[in-house]
Amino acid sequence: MTTAKASVLEQFNQPLQLREFALPAQLEPGAALVRTEMAGICGTDVHLWKGQLPVALPLILGHETVARIERLGAGLERDWTGQPLKIGDRVAWNSAVSCGQCYYCAEKRQPTRCPQRRAYGIGYRCDQPPHFFGGYAEFHYLWPRTHIFRLPDDLPTESLVGAGCALITAIHGVERTGIAWRDNVVVQGCGPVGLAALAVAKSAGAGKVIVIGGPKHRLELAKKFGADHVIDLDEVRDAKSRLEAVRQLTGGYGADVVLECVGIPAAFVEGAEFCRDGGKYLVLGHYCDAGTVAFNPHVITRKQLQVFGSWSSEPRHLRAAIEFLRRTQKEFPFHELVSRRYPIEQANEALQAMANWQVAKSVIVPA
Amino acid sequence: MTTAKASVLEQFNQPLQLREFALPAQLEPGAALVRTEMAGICGTDVHLWKGQLPVALPLILGHETVARIERLGAGLERDWTGQPLKIGDRVAWNSAVSCGQCYYCAEKRQPTRCPQRRAYGIGYRCDQPPHFFGGYAEFHYLWPRTHIFRLPDDLPTESLVGAGCALITAIHGVERTGIAWRDNVVVQGCGPVGLAALAVAKSAGAGKVIVIGGPKHRLELAKKFGADHVIDLDEVRDAKSRLEAVRQLTGGYGADVVLECVGIPAAFVEGAEFCRDGGKYLVLGHYCDAGTVAFNPHVITRKQLQVFGSWSSEPRHLRAAIEFLRRTQKEFPFHELVSRRYPIEQANEALQAMANWQVAKSVIVPA
Amino acid sequence: MTTAKASVLEQFNQPLQLREFALPAQLEPGAALVRTEMAGICGTDVHLWKGQLPVALPLILGHETVARIERLGAGLERDWTGQPLKIGDRVAWNSAVSCGQCYYCAEKRQPTRCPQRRAYGIGYRCDQPPHFFGGYAEFHYLWPRTHIFRLPDDLPTESLVGAGCALITAIHGVERTGIAWRDNVVVQGCGPVGLAALAVAKSAGAGKVIVIGGPKHRLELAKKFGADHVIDLDEVRDAKSRLEAVRQLTGGYGADVVLECVGIPAAFVEGAEFCRDGGKYLVLGHYCDAGTVAFNPHVITRKQLQVFGSWSSEPRHLRAAIEFLRRTQKEFPFHELVSRRYPIEQANEALQAMANWQVAKSVIVPA
Amino acid sequence: MTTAKASVLEQFNQPLQLREFALPAQLEPGAALVRTEMAGICGTDVHLWKGQLPVALPLILGHETVARIERLGAGLERDWTGQPLKIGDRVAWNSAVSCGQCYYCAEKRQPTRCPQRRAYGIGYRCDQPPHFFGGYAEFHYLWPRTHIFRLPDDLPTESLVGAGCALITAIHGVERTGIAWRDNVVVQGCGPVGLAALAVAKSAGAGKVIVIGGPKHRLELAKKFGADHVIDLDEVRDAKSRLEAVRQLTGGYGADVVLECVGIPAAFVEGAEFCRDGGKYLVLGHYCDAGTVAFNPHVITRKQLQVFGSWSSEPRHLRAAIEFLRRTQKEFPFHELVSRRYPIEQANEALQAMANWQVAKSVIVPA
Repeated sequence: MTTAKASVLEQFNQPLQLREFALPAQLEPGAALVRTEMAGICGTDVHLWKGQLPVALPLILGHETVARIERLGAGLERDWTGQPLKIGDRVAWNSAVSCGQCYYCAEKRQPTRCPQRRAYGIGYRCDQPPHFFGGYAEFHYLWPRTHIFRLPDDLPTESLVGAGCALITAIHGVERTGIAWRDNVVVQGCGPVGLAALAVAKSAGAGKVIVIGGPKHRLELAKKFGADHVIDLDEVRDAKSRLEAVRQLTGGYGADVVLECVGIPAAFVEGAEFCRDGGKYLVLGHYCDAGTVAFNPHVITRKQLQVFGSWSSEPRHLRAAIEFLRRTQKEFPFHELVSRRYPIEQANEALQAMANWQVAKSVIVPA
Repeated sequence: MTTAKASVLEQFNQPLQLREFALPAQLEPGAALVRTEMAGICGTDVHLWKGQLPVALPLILGHETVARIERLGAGLERDWTGQPLKIGDRVAWNSAVSCGQCYYCAEKRQPTRCPQRRAYGIGYRCDQPPHFFGGYAEFHYLWPRTHIFRLPDDLPTESLVGAGCALITAIHGVERTGIAWRDNVVVQGCGPVGLAALAVAKSAGAGKVIVIGGPKHRLELAKKFGADHVIDLDEVRDAKSRLEAVRQLTGGYGADVVLECVGIPAAFVEGAEFCRDGGKYLVLGHYCDAGTVAFNPHVITRKQLQVFGSWSSEPRHLRAAIEFLRRTQKEFPFHELVSRRYPIEQANEALQAMANWQVAKSVIVPA
Repeated sequence: MTTAKASVLEQFNQPLQLREFALPAQLEPGAALVRTEMAGICGTDVHLWKGQLPVALPLILGHETVARIERLGAGLERDWTGQPLKIGDRVAWNSAVSCGQCYYCAEKRQPTRCPQRRAYGIGYRCDQPPHFFGGYAEFHYLWPRTHIFRLPDDLPTESLVGAGCALITAIHGVERTGIAWRDNVVVQGCGPVGLAALAVAKSAGAGKVIVIGGPKHRLELAKKFGADHVIDLDEVRDAKSRLEAVRQLTGGYGADVVLECVGIPAAFVEGAEFCRDGGKYLVLGHYCDAGTVAFNPHVITRKQLQVFGSWSSEPRHLRAAIEFLRRTQKEFPFHELVSRRYPIEQANEALQAMANWQVAKSVIVPA
Repeated sequence: MTTAKASVLEQFNQPLQLREFALPAQLEPGAALVRTEMAGICGTDVHLWKGQLPVALPLILGHETVARIERLGAGLERDWTGQPLKIGDRVAWNSAVSCGQCYYCAEKRQPTRCPQRRAYGIGYRCDQPPHFFGGYAEFHYLWPRTHIFRLPDDLPTESLVGAGCALITAIHGVERTGIAWRDNVVVQGCGPVGLAALAVAKSAGAGKVIVIGGPKHRLELAKKFGADHVIDLDEVRDAKSRLEAVRQLTGGYGADVVLECVGIPAAFVEGAEFCRDGGKYLVLGHYCDAGTVAFNPHVITRKQLQVFGSWSSEPRHLRAAIEFLRRTQKEFPFHELVSRRYPIEQANEALQAMANWQVAKSVIVPA
């Protein structure tokens, strides 16, 4: 086998094109070539496809991938945790790698803000060899220094792809925020990030967790993931009633911690109100620039809020996610989010299913 | 002496009226009657006078007062630090007292958000005995449980009144934010709160401190208080140039910590930009509701900011302030802010001088 | 009914004496008289009985009590959370009350170190009216300012008494230490404090929890409470083997967090070794002075440890405990610890059962 | 010039030998060859010389060095802060480099505990080319990935060498401990680490700082560095009196923070007593294993202490130190510690002067 298929984004808002690229004849030391087992479609992929983020084309999308090792470059003998790596091992990896040396990496310990950081499925053009830098393809090339993790046998591929980058994003965000034992938590939103934030909050010691969102089938999932209360946006339509509902569920005070997983500017203003005085607010859903909203900074001063932002995740979060998923499959059935499988030839359909919110999560399974 | 004079706010936006009230014949146990030595005019007093905050009239303004003990109620023998109290001692006190028992006081340790909290000079009408609940008067009544501090002899009255409630507000705010050793800091604003924040930041381990504000005479004060750089709003008039200036002074990254001491909504948006990625932002100046501003929450997520609000202060902050002022009079000459003295009969003029920004700080010194 | 029975410690190491005391004719404002429903025997009671702690006799032991309101003093209308209180309500309360005003309470926010703090069942002699200051009695007098909590109907009395002061002690200790999400934890000891620490750690986000202790029936309980691994002191008898076992279970590094719940000095030395470099160590079990041990401080420097002590608990910990117990009865069956019931007349037998480690927890149930 | 001189430790407890080694003909990419300007003698060098630490011989000692760039390997164009590097630039560097990839570096963010970490002047034998891995030599070889810092012109070499590794050790230690604004601090010890801890504490916001140590000439230095009080071990000889003195200076409570900079086990026990209840204790001086001491763990529980260890330092600490020294030469005259200069031929004498405590700091200045 000297070539392999990939589904390529060549023009924004146009169908992905099925292309064939040459597989690398030789790997540089420390690199790996892996064979895609399952590639998740992330909501961000929809934004990328629409051209809402500044990326260079042509591009193979996909940054939530599980694969099996096909070839190992010289010197690559162990995964990031020290486990030996061999041909056929099932692996996952961090989609982005930071430089480890710069001001943000080493001085300020904010490696997710490293200016040299680039992500598979987002930041690499595919028209130069070795081409395979995204998940929507039969193979994937992993640069040296990629943080690779050999997956434990008892962790289904669906769990990890179902959790996707939403889970590690939520883990990082909750880490930055800090949930105290038995804190009351409001999660705004019940898309993949909201569900992940719910799971992390519950497992991190939260008391009551209230999820606000929709549509109904997602709120059902939220209940399955342990939400103590759900507030349906289709039923409680005005912000004032939602605030009242939150207060009633939190002894009249508001929540200790609010986790914003929506990405709509108005949600930011509403979420700050959900906090009790002295409470914490994580603004996690605003990955894209969705514009401004009329906000009163007096709220932050008067309520003595703590507001946190969090961007992407670090390798240790993926490490923790793998162990977490392995041990909590019953409480947090992330594998159930994988609701529809597509062959690589139907990558367009997979992407549209996500764009239309038809599914919790669609995935690509190369034949 | 059975009566004493007070300057009373009877109607918003109207001149204060000089009134005479009966002094209490007897003190309840734990209370004190003190004779005003100096009362500061705070910027908040101007807002109160204009009716911009919800208070009940008639009202004796003044919550930054130094006085001498005239009479002590039964059982009041020591100040909050355990020092003995006697007639003639010079004292200061926290203007507000929290209940110590409620959800915010005891459960969440946010006593400044105690719903029963009331402040001298703001929250007590003066038409009921014992009347004297504000600084603009010859005497002041201190309820039982007021946190009284006997002042050390080597601390001039002008230092404490010059620092006013701005200093303890800044101490609380910086405590909540946390400045790491050698952090670069931007202070937005150089009114009393800005100068106090500068002093606290410098003495709390900050590296470079940049003050942005005006007018010139206040920036000169900022330099005297140790500002490493000042940016004059009258000279650098557009936000873009100011951002560039801050970046240039911080290695291109922005500040580790930004302290907002302005109270104008637009400053909030600008300050968030001054932060480096992963930086901290204290929103301290928004005591009054000054309306909304167009804000993009994406900034918080992308830059991984930490944003903090802080409201008022606790007794321990006044305790620390007294010790701090005593030991750092040379580095931080707060006494120089007391630029004009007025007798009680000219309380209106004192207030107008603050309203017109003619002085750093005007004070009332009853004859 | 004008008198009631109590079991009184009159001489150390001698049988408790059944005495009759007068019930108060009238309650002071804010106080309450409650009728004992169940009183737990704590391990500390055994130390008190042996005279190993400095207390004044005669004394009614018992600081883990659930009771029903018999009479309410004037003004006592709500519990600490704001719920209305009425005759017949089932309640619990914090055994100790801090002054709220002193250096440790208000300045340093360490109310458990308040020098005026006194605890029911420990710090009040019973030979002065109103006598009833301990749990081993038919009634209990609650001073004004006692933090009373009305118990929810779906929380069995056995849960709260079974958890006892061990649970709130553990909650406070873990709060001071901070367990990060998915941290590996070692619990040294599986008495009441060890089991409680296990429950708090598991519910606070810990990953793997390893319990080291004995005897076997307690390790069985530990497994029931969710311990991922147990190490039986009767089987792994030397410290070196235990260290090796812990390392093997933690990737070779040692635990992120070690919780000492033993109280024997040698355990302190061993526990420091269980920590990974940069790990955290909570020294929670050393309530009594059990003497010294040969310790090498170099360990703290070289391993970059963080070591925390924690003393007793605050009202908010009891509040959280009540809610926690109510919601997690299945995962953490504290009620099963209540293994034997005694009438007040057999208080001696109840105490001896604890002294001899015959039971997990014995309790007194006045007829 | 093809060879250069170095003073070599060939046998423990024997005089260093002056040797000549070949300079490298060519540098590997990213490496640098620098010419020693001044090399500090650290107290650790004395321990190394005595064979008290496990190192391999032969060894060129010296890990506190300032030098000028002689040659630059391919690709080494900028220092760690992004400043351009050129021949002749005066530089300093971190003596140890961590791997950046392992469990401690990347997962737990404790890079000073990286198992692959090796330090110049300690961890490299000099019998293999390029030989020059320590400060006691005319030249020094810097491996690729060494964190190099170009020194600002207004920072005297004596300041940095005088501060030595003591300063960056103290910076790291105080960072881990956290000194709150106006905290009272006790520093145990007034050797180089104690003086550095004093300087960092004062500049980090401490209120009163009390230094305990000797001999007199060092306590004089401590006063020069801003100590508010000194306690002379030669005058206050018993631990009880010292504890009383500390309590008297801290309102009867003990210090908020105690910094141990001694390295003698008995000091650990004494220091824990100096803390107020709920206070913090940094065990910083125990770099060598100096054996055990009888310690009572009950102290940690009862006093609710927080005890921290800290090991070595990270590149960001050196970066901060350089900026700090540059800006605070008047307040903290570290250059004055450089009390005697020796040519490379008299390295033995330089070392003995430190061993005999004759000087604050001796240094080697190759001709």
